[in-house]
Amino acid sequence: MYSFDYYNPTHISFGEGKITELDKLVPSKAKVLVLFGGNSAKRTGTLDEVKTALGQRDIVEFGGIEANPTYETLMQAVTVIKEEKIDFLLAVGGGSVIDGTKFVAAAALFEGEPWDILLSWGAKVIEAMPFGTVLTLPATGSEMNSASVVTRKEFQAKLSFMSDHVFPQFSVLDPTKTFTLPERQVANGVVDAFIHITEQYLTYPVNAPVQDRFAEGLLQTLIELGPKALSQPDDFDVRANLMWVATMALSGVIGKGIPHDWATHMIGHELTALYDIDHARTIAMILPGMLDCRRDSKQEKLLQYGERVWGITQGTIDERIDAAIAKTREFFEAMGIKTRLSDYDLTAASIDEIMTKLEKHGMTALGEKQDVDLTMSRKILERNL
Amino acid sequence: MYSFDYYNPTHISFGEGKITELDKLVPSKAKVLVLFGGNSAKRTGTLDEVKTALGQRDIVEFGGIEANPTYETLMQAVTVIKEEKIDFLLAVGGGSVIDGTKFVAAAALFEGEPWDILLSWGAKVIEAMPFGTVLTLPATGSEMNSASVVTRKEFQAKLSFMSDHVFPQFSVLDPTKTFTLPERQVANGVVDAFIHITEQYLTYPVNAPVQDRFAEGLLQTLIELGPKALSQPDDFDVRANLMWVATMALSGVIGKGIPHDWATHMIGHELTALYDIDHARTIAMILPGMLDCRRDSKQEKLLQYGERVWGITQGTIDERIDAAIAKTREFFEAMGIKTRLSDYDLTAASIDEIMTKLEKHGMTALGEKQDVDLTMSRKILERNL
Repeated sequence: MYSFDYYNPTHISFGEGKITELDKLVPSKAKVLVLFGGNSAKRTGTLDEVKTALGQRDIVEFGGIEANPTYETLMQAVTVIKEEKIDFLLAVGGGSVIDGTKFVAAAALFEGEPWDILLSWGAKVIEAMPFGTVLTLPATGSEMNSASVVTRKEFQAKLSFMSDHVFPQFSVLDPTKTFTLPERQVANGVVDAFIHITEQYLTYPVNAPVQDRFAEGLLQTLIELGPKALSQPDDFDVRANLMWVATMALSGVIGKGIPHDWATHMIGHELTALYDIDHARTIAMILPGMLDCRRDSKQEKLLQYGERVWGITQGTIDERIDAAIAKTREFFEAMGIKTRLSDYDLTAASIDEIMTKLEKHGMTALGEKQDVDLTMSRKILERNL
Repeated sequence: MYSFDYYNPTHISFGEGKITELDKLVPSKAKVLVLFGGNSAKRTGTLDEVKTALGQRDIVEFGGIEANPTYETLMQAVTVIKEEKIDFLLAVGGGSVIDGTKFVAAAALFEGEPWDILLSWGAKVIEAMPFGTVLTLPATGSEMNSASVVTRKEFQAKLSFMSDHVFPQFSVLDPTKTFTLPERQVANGVVDAFIHITEQYLTYPVNAPVQDRFAEGLLQTLIELGPKALSQPDDFDVRANLMWVATMALSGVIGKGIPHDWATHMIGHELTALYDIDHARTIAMILPGMLDCRRDSKQEKLLQYGERVWGITQGTIDERIDAAIAKTREFFEAMGIKTRLSDYDLTAASIDEIMTKLEKHGMTALGEKQDVDLTMSRKILERNL
């Protein structure tokens, strides 16, 4: 196991009806900016519940944060914060709203051009506004970590940053708030969480059995519950456990002390920025080819994954790895998520466009061994065309 | 899954050489009380390393905190804090030193008689001094939680408290610091961590697959590595992974949203208070009888434990449960820890003494269903005589 630092101060308030706890969690004198996405927060009544729980506090609403939140929209929130003298932020939504709120929290106090926050991967963030979240879509794990991904439309760029200053102070996780999610978003959430885990787990072994078994336990739970989440949308336990898997998948607990990959995400981000394809779908169409092309350097973990997660014990090394990749692809497809570029009308010409962006963004040495160069990335995309 | 709150702000600094990080972790102007146990912190050089890392800071030493730290000793530390105007505490040791430091941190700022901290289970703690830890013995998990157990000699009482105010600000975990531990302490640590996990896992199912699989993963890791820790004391990976298991076992991550038992611990505490037997040994001699006598109410989880942790799939329900309990006992014995009261020269008369103490301390409705009454406790002790 490698050396590591683990720090995660986010307070999780988990369970049905927990939105009422906001009255205790948000400072009583705060002037609160409530950030949310489209109309679903209003339509489902969640926004009203949040406002009721906030009681007499002075509230300003900021709606319209997009899936894949944009710098352009988020900077409008920063303007509102300054004009209205806001002192606490509350994100109500899924990973996009929460990621966006993290950027807003840092940008509102940033000296200089806030885009530098992303160009520096968060290194330049020395403070941020306090904020909490009410999670309505389990997927990204953003509710309990310090990472954020933001898209800048004018540059067709999707970049990330991390900073200890942007851990949510608290996150309210009420599984019943996910009952009304569209099937597409539930499926996206399951696949997103799945690939968050494989990015940390499918690398090379460093003798870290706790992290391995935690990761395998989360993957097994997703495989068991994912299809049930589609067929039984109002089963509390299914939704509660999926919510907790997605949070645990990226809270740091499975990822400390081990190498990380994230090449699938880096390439996926380019697809979203270029073609506006749902994040989960972009990574679902990259992961199988990624594992296929990198089967040698990932061999030991791929075999362990096949055996412990899928029960694959028979065949040659290549046959077992093929079977593990096939099972992974089948699982995504069973969740209603297609796994080939051509399923999304992408062509060989699209691969050229993606390669141009990867090169432009310096994505030339990805993965746990930094050996995913542009040649390898092209091969991976072509393998999954 | 039940509703829950999860909050754990302790910063873990894990790896070889991490003691040097103290210079960043402890406030630069702090006057530091360094609390430790016997001579091993001095003999092994760890105390010197700590003092070197603390650089120019004003340091006062407080040694002599016992295994099962006593109120009597800890109150002396409180006096030193007040006399010396200490403003930061640093625990260097295992669970006893850390538990003791938590009590000291709370007692130093407590209005009234500090014993009330324990009598109120921590409810009366409204503030505590800031402190960090340097862990030298993986076992109790105290380095990353808000619980503490303190013994008051004059009352032969061993009581616990919990408070969000006594999370360590940081804990430094350097696995190489455990290379020189006596075999007895290593074995104790493995068994202590094992039973911390079973207290949370072996109850009744509430459909919490993540918590179940995390617990099973930790148990499997202990079973794999425990014997190696005895036979290969300077294997870094073995010690590192054991250290991380013990921390994860009681950091909250496997125990949120599920019922807890802790009857084994409550009875075990009485044995330590009465006979000064190592904590791990007291619980090792209670757990097998506990599981045996409560096999009906724990049936589903015992079968799951047998299958997933020990691979037991054959036989009647009772045979499988018997086999799981036998495997557990064999594991403890293989670690050199005896599992019967008579192995420690306890007799039927001792059981009478233990029962008197349990009654006096109100331990009349223990366990996840509060159904472990005095009659059941007596039966459990007799079963393991």
